[in-house]
Amino acid sequence: MTVPARRSWWGWGSVADELSPAETKALVARTEALLPGHDFTDHPPPDPADLPIPPPRIQPPPALTGLCSPDPHDRLAHARGKAFRDVVRNLHGDVTHVPDLVARPRTEQDVIDLLDWCTDATIPVIPYGGGSSVVGGIEPRFDSPAIALDLQHLDQVLEVDRTSRAARIQAGTYGPALESQLRPHGLTLRHFPQSFAYSTLGGWLATRAGGHFATLYTHIDDLTESLRVITPAGTGETRRLPGSGAGPSPDRLFLGSEGTLGVITEAWMRLRDRPRWQTTCSVSFTDYPAAVAATRALAQSGLHPSNCRLLDPAEAFLSTATTVDGGLLIVAFESADHPVDAWLARAVEITAGHGGTVLSTRHRGEETTDSAGSWRSAFLRMPYQRDALARRAMIVETFETACTWDRFETLHAAITDAAHQALTAIRGAGLISCRFTHVYPDGPAPYYSVYAPGRWGSTVAQWDEIKHAVSEAIIDNGGTITHHHAVGRDHRPWYDRQRPDPFAAALRAAKHALDPAGILNPGVLLSGESPLAQLDTPSPR
Amino acid sequence: MTVPARRSWWGWGSVADELSPAETKALVARTEALLPGHDFTDHPPPDPADLPIPPPRIQPPPALTGLCSPDPHDRLAHARGKAFRDVVRNLHGDVTHVPDLVARPRTEQDVIDLLDWCTDATIPVIPYGGGSSVVGGIEPRFDSPAIALDLQHLDQVLEVDRTSRAARIQAGTYGPALESQLRPHGLTLRHFPQSFAYSTLGGWLATRAGGHFATLYTHIDDLTESLRVITPAGTGETRRLPGSGAGPSPDRLFLGSEGTLGVITEAWMRLRDRPRWQTTCSVSFTDYPAAVAATRALAQSGLHPSNCRLLDPAEAFLSTATTVDGGLLIVAFESADHPVDAWLARAVEITAGHGGTVLSTRHRGEETTDSAGSWRSAFLRMPYQRDALARRAMIVETFETACTWDRFETLHAAITDAAHQALTAIRGAGLISCRFTHVYPDGPAPYYSVYAPGRWGSTVAQWDEIKHAVSEAIIDNGGTITHHHAVGRDHRPWYDRQRPDPFAAALRAAKHALDPAGILNPGVLLSGESPLAQLDTPSPR
Repeated sequence: MTVPARRSWWGWGSVADELSPAETKALVARTEALLPGHDFTDHPPPDPADLPIPPPRIQPPPALTGLCSPDPHDRLAHARGKAFRDVVRNLHGDVTHVPDLVARPRTEQDVIDLLDWCTDATIPVIPYGGGSSVVGGIEPRFDSPAIALDLQHLDQVLEVDRTSRAARIQAGTYGPALESQLRPHGLTLRHFPQSFAYSTLGGWLATRAGGHFATLYTHIDDLTESLRVITPAGTGETRRLPGSGAGPSPDRLFLGSEGTLGVITEAWMRLRDRPRWQTTCSVSFTDYPAAVAATRALAQSGLHPSNCRLLDPAEAFLSTATTVDGGLLIVAFESADHPVDAWLARAVEITAGHGGTVLSTRHRGEETTDSAGSWRSAFLRMPYQRDALARRAMIVETFETACTWDRFETLHAAITDAAHQALTAIRGAGLISCRFTHVYPDGPAPYYSVYAPGRWGSTVAQWDEIKHAVSEAIIDNGGTITHHHAVGRDHRPWYDRQRPDPFAAALRAAKHALDPAGILNPGVLLSGESPLAQLDTPSPR
Repeated sequence: MTVPARRSWWGWGSVADELSPAETKALVARTEALLPGHDFTDHPPPDPADLPIPPPRIQPPPALTGLCSPDPHDRLAHARGKAFRDVVRNLHGDVTHVPDLVARPRTEQDVIDLLDWCTDATIPVIPYGGGSSVVGGIEPRFDSPAIALDLQHLDQVLEVDRTSRAARIQAGTYGPALESQLRPHGLTLRHFPQSFAYSTLGGWLATRAGGHFATLYTHIDDLTESLRVITPAGTGETRRLPGSGAGPSPDRLFLGSEGTLGVITEAWMRLRDRPRWQTTCSVSFTDYPAAVAATRALAQSGLHPSNCRLLDPAEAFLSTATTVDGGLLIVAFESADHPVDAWLARAVEITAGHGGTVLSTRHRGEETTDSAGSWRSAFLRMPYQRDALARRAMIVETFETACTWDRFETLHAAITDAAHQALTAIRGAGLISCRFTHVYPDGPAPYYSVYAPGRWGSTVAQWDEIKHAVSEAIIDNGGTITHHHAVGRDHRPWYDRQRPDPFAAALRAAKHALDPAGILNPGVLLSGESPLAQLDTPSPR
């Protein structure tokens, strides 16, 4: 079992990586400079031993007892994901909706046995990967008993096909363990979501996670060759195929199903050779629309940069300490096969045509002292900073979407307007920044960060107001409620509006066929089709 | 209405494009040289006026009479697709399973009204695009009455979004009409299946058609931004999104549904600028495994060639008159943004590393006198040649699959062995050739052509023997029963073995939810879930 060491029960990541006192002090000072007058009193997390966690209301049959942990702290650590609202509720010692048991299957047969028991006893089961959901995806937000099905023991790369560059990997494998098992073969998945160290392959697949590549292979979907899924109605495995036209894609039904149709136990994943050439370039713009136009031209150029992240001025300042008037575009190319100079040269030409100025260019192996390098380090520290600020009554959260290029300007204005109005209603201050995490020929995936001084005790409700306002703006202006964070329970009301009725009917029918007792992650994606229907009410809060 | 002029009722394409007597004579002479001793007597098609086409068994309600044609020749022309076995059955004047009516809706409301009538009266409806199915996809292979729903009047590009490079296009639009409506905007879909002139957008979407691009955007799936679908249970339209992670992809359920879940009436399609730079290069090999290895290296290089077609020696000779010992690889790059010299140079380096020799390189605008150019012209003439030979008791047909690279050698050997054994059992002669139509980092999509002297009156049964043998080899050796020809009725037995049970259950449930009367294209993809269950028996012949 290779899981990250000593996870924080209340906040992001591992205890060892929390901000140091010096880092915290510097962060608070920086934040205070931007948002003066806020009360930065620290509200440390409670001792979990003091929390009134109720005993389990269910007991496994004897054969499954060894797989099921009734330990209160174990259950507490599986009670919710790692969104801002999750962290703050933890800080407040809110212990509603703690699962009754944490089940840890060691084999596929264990998964089958557990699902059989839960089907017979009508007990909701929440498939659990790394627990890094930021959308309420793993929280038993209902009153009935529940089991968290933690796949962490299914953590092996089982088979490697060097010729086809693919590997059969168990779903409970965490990012770093996955990469370290592939490294001896010279192969890599190169799927690096921000949650990489604290999330698993199965979680990525179930939520259509977005990864490293800003173009082409943006979602884990595109890296998936075949899936093995255990449903209450039986087990199935798709063929390993590089491409197929035999009916609707079976994998695409389970990708993004968020644990509602079955438990993904294994997948054959498409890999690549480790890159030998890498070049990253930062380009500044004095004008945001010009920066957007340059990014669009790059996305439509057929150059397929591995990175193509446009930071708006606020984002550039906050995460790279670079001051730009219009935007900072980070463009990278990488290859295991050939130097990428011709690609970068043309990319720079394109950005220059839109008024971009190259700030720095860095090649593989060179030191990362430029703004692109700063951005990368900041990216991985962000969740820890979020937690330090959350303890100090700051509202710090993100949300994301995607839209076609023709709609971006309107959507972006509607989102920022809605966020500012909501911020004003709350307290009158706050900051919203935007970056593109992924870009396509037909549109960008904008990702927003919100920083606002809140009132201790109310920051969850305050954030919920903001989230409601921006989600309305997204759905009313042609965006998707999520490009890669998934639907979970938090996005349900807007997902329900986004999803066409015939597809909802088809999905509901498929769910009923595969999970007739409706035990699998009730309340996520679907409502009202199961004996557990009363658990399925969309509930964003 | 822009449909191709004067279609052949019995064979491929348009009457005007049939082989000339001189072309036919040359073709027969070439074929005779390869397969001496065959009886090349011509069996011309019957006069359709002489065929005993039974009158319609159903009558539309008065409001729909104007949309429905009972004309026997119209119905005959909609009775089957354009596979070898379809053409030969036409030549024999076999008029079983002619649809009772051809309905031609002019609006979406017409489609809704027609589906409502058919649902109420339990009449099977077969959505019909260009009628170019080669897998029995549009043939009412059952005894009940049936309606062909021909969408040819829904043939407009309705909206163009130049910024996002996308257009809203009606499903009944034929390839050439689609491109000619996009040309004034400087845009192109660049989806060029062999059937391009005789197939429609809706048909491509419903069957997951494979197109022009040998890498990356291989299937129409990847060019689809959103779909509008009318089902008996209601109409739905997905959002225009460049990417999304909001639940399982709704579009992917309808892509490849082959008319069983609903009628696709419109789609927003991702377009591109018309290419300015194009370079095509032919590379010969003296050794087939080395040619395969070179192709794999190219597919894994990240260069993303627009064409990357490996012809084996037989295929190279038959379609380009080029003699090679190991294989002929046609590699092309194209771009609207930049010269592609750096890309081609690296591709040539890769092939040279595997013993490849460049035969010719051609740039955009240069005359196409080389083997790559010959291949392109031959490609479009192939179906007409097939028809001329089918009239002369030759068995001429193709089939295709895809597999991971590690399995290709075994699969290829199993397929060619099975084909040769079947050919031997039939007559003792024949030829099988192979090309890769598309390649992926994790595997190729091999496409086979079979040429064999048959016995007039038995060529369909003889072909069916061969098809059965190679399909068994495909399914037993890790291939897909179709990479881009679709499932239809002909591939059902093997599709049923390939498809995992839970996905079959999910699809069946989805079908029942959207098409409760089971009227939509019964017998394709699914069995036994409808009042029309008796029509759904897999029937490969």
